[in-house]
Amino acid sequence: MARFDAYFLMKPADAAAYAKEKLAYFDREADLQFTEIGDGNLNYIFRIVDARGRRSLVIKQAGHTARISDEFKLSLDRNRIEYDILKLERELAPGLVPEVYGFDPVMNCCAMEDLSDHLIMRQALLERREYPLFAEHITTFMVNTLLLTSDAVLDHKRKKALVGSFINPDLCEITEDLVYTEPFNDVKLRNLPFGPNLEFIKRELYEDEALLLESAKLKFDFLTHAQCLVHGDLHTGSIFVRPDSTKVIDPEFAFYGPAGYDVGNVVANLIFAWVNADTTMPAGRAREAFSGYLARTLEEVVDLFISKWRRLWDEKVTETVARYRGFAAWYLDGVLEDTAGVTGLELCRRIVGIAHVKDITSIAEPARRLRAERLCLSLAKRCIRERASLKTGRDYLELLKWAAGNYPRGEA
Amino acid sequence: MARFDAYFLMKPADAAAYAKEKLAYFDREADLQFTEIGDGNLNYIFRIVDARGRRSLVIKQAGHTARISDEFKLSLDRNRIEYDILKLERELAPGLVPEVYGFDPVMNCCAMEDLSDHLIMRQALLERREYPLFAEHITTFMVNTLLLTSDAVLDHKRKKALVGSFINPDLCEITEDLVYTEPFNDVKLRNLPFGPNLEFIKRELYEDEALLLESAKLKFDFLTHAQCLVHGDLHTGSIFVRPDSTKVIDPEFAFYGPAGYDVGNVVANLIFAWVNADTTMPAGRAREAFSGYLARTLEEVVDLFISKWRRLWDEKVTETVARYRGFAAWYLDGVLEDTAGVTGLELCRRIVGIAHVKDITSIAEPARRLRAERLCLSLAKRCIRERASLKTGRDYLELLKWAAGNYPRGEA
Repeated sequence: MARFDAYFLMKPADAAAYAKEKLAYFDREADLQFTEIGDGNLNYIFRIVDARGRRSLVIKQAGHTARISDEFKLSLDRNRIEYDILKLERELAPGLVPEVYGFDPVMNCCAMEDLSDHLIMRQALLERREYPLFAEHITTFMVNTLLLTSDAVLDHKRKKALVGSFINPDLCEITEDLVYTEPFNDVKLRNLPFGPNLEFIKRELYEDEALLLESAKLKFDFLTHAQCLVHGDLHTGSIFVRPDSTKVIDPEFAFYGPAGYDVGNVVANLIFAWVNADTTMPAGRAREAFSGYLARTLEEVVDLFISKWRRLWDEKVTETVARYRGFAAWYLDGVLEDTAGVTGLELCRRIVGIAHVKDITSIAEPARRLRAERLCLSLAKRCIRERASLKTGRDYLELLKWAAGNYPRGEA
Repeated sequence: MARFDAYFLMKPADAAAYAKEKLAYFDREADLQFTEIGDGNLNYIFRIVDARGRRSLVIKQAGHTARISDEFKLSLDRNRIEYDILKLERELAPGLVPEVYGFDPVMNCCAMEDLSDHLIMRQALLERREYPLFAEHITTFMVNTLLLTSDAVLDHKRKKALVGSFINPDLCEITEDLVYTEPFNDVKLRNLPFGPNLEFIKRELYEDEALLLESAKLKFDFLTHAQCLVHGDLHTGSIFVRPDSTKVIDPEFAFYGPAGYDVGNVVANLIFAWVNADTTMPAGRAREAFSGYLARTLEEVVDLFISKWRRLWDEKVTETVARYRGFAAWYLDGVLEDTAGVTGLELCRRIVGIAHVKDITSIAEPARRLRAERLCLSLAKRCIRERASLKTGRDYLELLKWAAGNYPRGEA
């Protein structure tokens, strides 16, 4: 037993022993199967299943460095943050995050519900699966976790205590560098642009001074605007889906930041899926249907976010001055402006920076990948520069049409 | 000796014993004179002097409630905050804060330099004294303490650590209530407006919905904008002056907030002094000279703040994206906009709210006080509503002229 009294990076067999001996989650006699299933950048994820298939468990352990590169030294505190956030999110948005069974500050790991009956959304969308309830679920998750942690609703002292608990310097630094800085200037010389688009990226990003200025304003918003407790990494690789269920995972980037950061990440990653379908599926009804589903989902995410936000605002706002005439609209306008800006930033950084997405990198044919990337980058620029005027789902759909029209597929 | 091992609220004699026995600041044989000199709202200030006049010391102890009212229960942590901030400010702006000799977390008191050879600036200005170096000193203090603690200069992780150290819920709540909320709606029914102006205040503040909306936007900026480590209470009662020296005291309200909060407080409190002189001094050369000195000081505070900020920005900025073309101007513009907004808020709350200033309350003759208050409130409204266009010292002087013209003294 003493083997878990000091931190070490577990192997799958250690995790199984841990689940049995330390957590007593399984019978002592249980015949356990175990495997490492992590494909993210930061942690090790062990799935442990009772051979009779009755019980299963996931254990997530933090390593000292990112799996993507030793350059990123990370505080082990992130798993404590993850555990605390999952508990909080569960209260605010029941059913939309995995159950958590415990956090071990020594082994720096967290035991949680096994979601093997769900799929990671990014992969599922690449397999052309549809999730008709996703927009409904994710907008409830975002509106509840964001608005209910804001100063509009929460007692300001309680909010300040949460700000203090979730100051998250290491993970924020990753975002500050990879999302807000390097895509626009490659200052650390570690961007990984697709070669044939290098000139395009140089001209359209690195040399566009007006765009750079807007990206800098957005970076300072991220650095200083302690508005809501954001998830901080809400892309389709952080979301597990089943047709009837949506579970948001991996909140280790959580901190008090601009609400639009989460919404913009969801929007941008739906755009990646749409661009993939539009670029790679053969012309025909299947493509129409699937890209239509994605466009509808994108529109619903924006519009349901707005309508649910307004409803919850009317129900829950406690701050006196937030009831003044005109304030609710002004506040939501700001969230939507940040949403558009972050949509643009995420669209850039996944094309240009160090951390790509499979929606784009899986496009094998160079001419198609070229088209997909240029489509994303031209959308990104408009989202950033025109962020004050993107206010509805329809506004985003019109941008998609505009961008697709500018970069035709070259089909007959 | 054991008497200082547990917290109790000291009397002057206790403080003298503390200085001798616990701090060993004086000889055991020293004949000490001691007195309580605090006139602020929150703390007890003891001055202890060696009868031979060779050494002196100030001890500042925090009570559990504000002296102004038992309603304000305050964390004793504020003296720890004050001590840490004074040390930090001393590094950033040498010579412009008192020396601190130590902090005692048990007795919750702080020993510091005796500034009895200085005067509290508010009182000194009411005595028509001039401080020709004040603008120079206070702008150095503000530019250094604000810009050097911002994300433009400071490593972002170090900045986040400071944010965490100076989350200051109790003191921030006082400001949120007294500056940003109650002057516009008297929601807690504890405003103390001057009777003859009650109707004016009702019409010009409580019923002006456009003004209310702007005040709410500014409140959320205060609640969420972790831009710089602000002093948080930089009025002329927190500043000790001598003709050749300026010392900023009482940083217990410090937290990460909008830089303009400090600048706006200095500007507004110079306006109170100007309004007092303009309203109460008899027509003639003395009034011209003194109100001219105050107007010049106000203009210099704004303009020197701007020029020193730009110079220090060019020298010290480390954040890559803050070097993009146009960013420095955009950032400073935001600080100046907040400055104007806070100037307006401070002008309102000292007239309408629970905490008044002697510059106004000392005006005995009702018609004059009426005039002084209306002048301040009409200035306040323009500062809040037109905050985006107040960019130079001259802009403020023109507002002063406009307001004085609207409310003539009624002299021949």
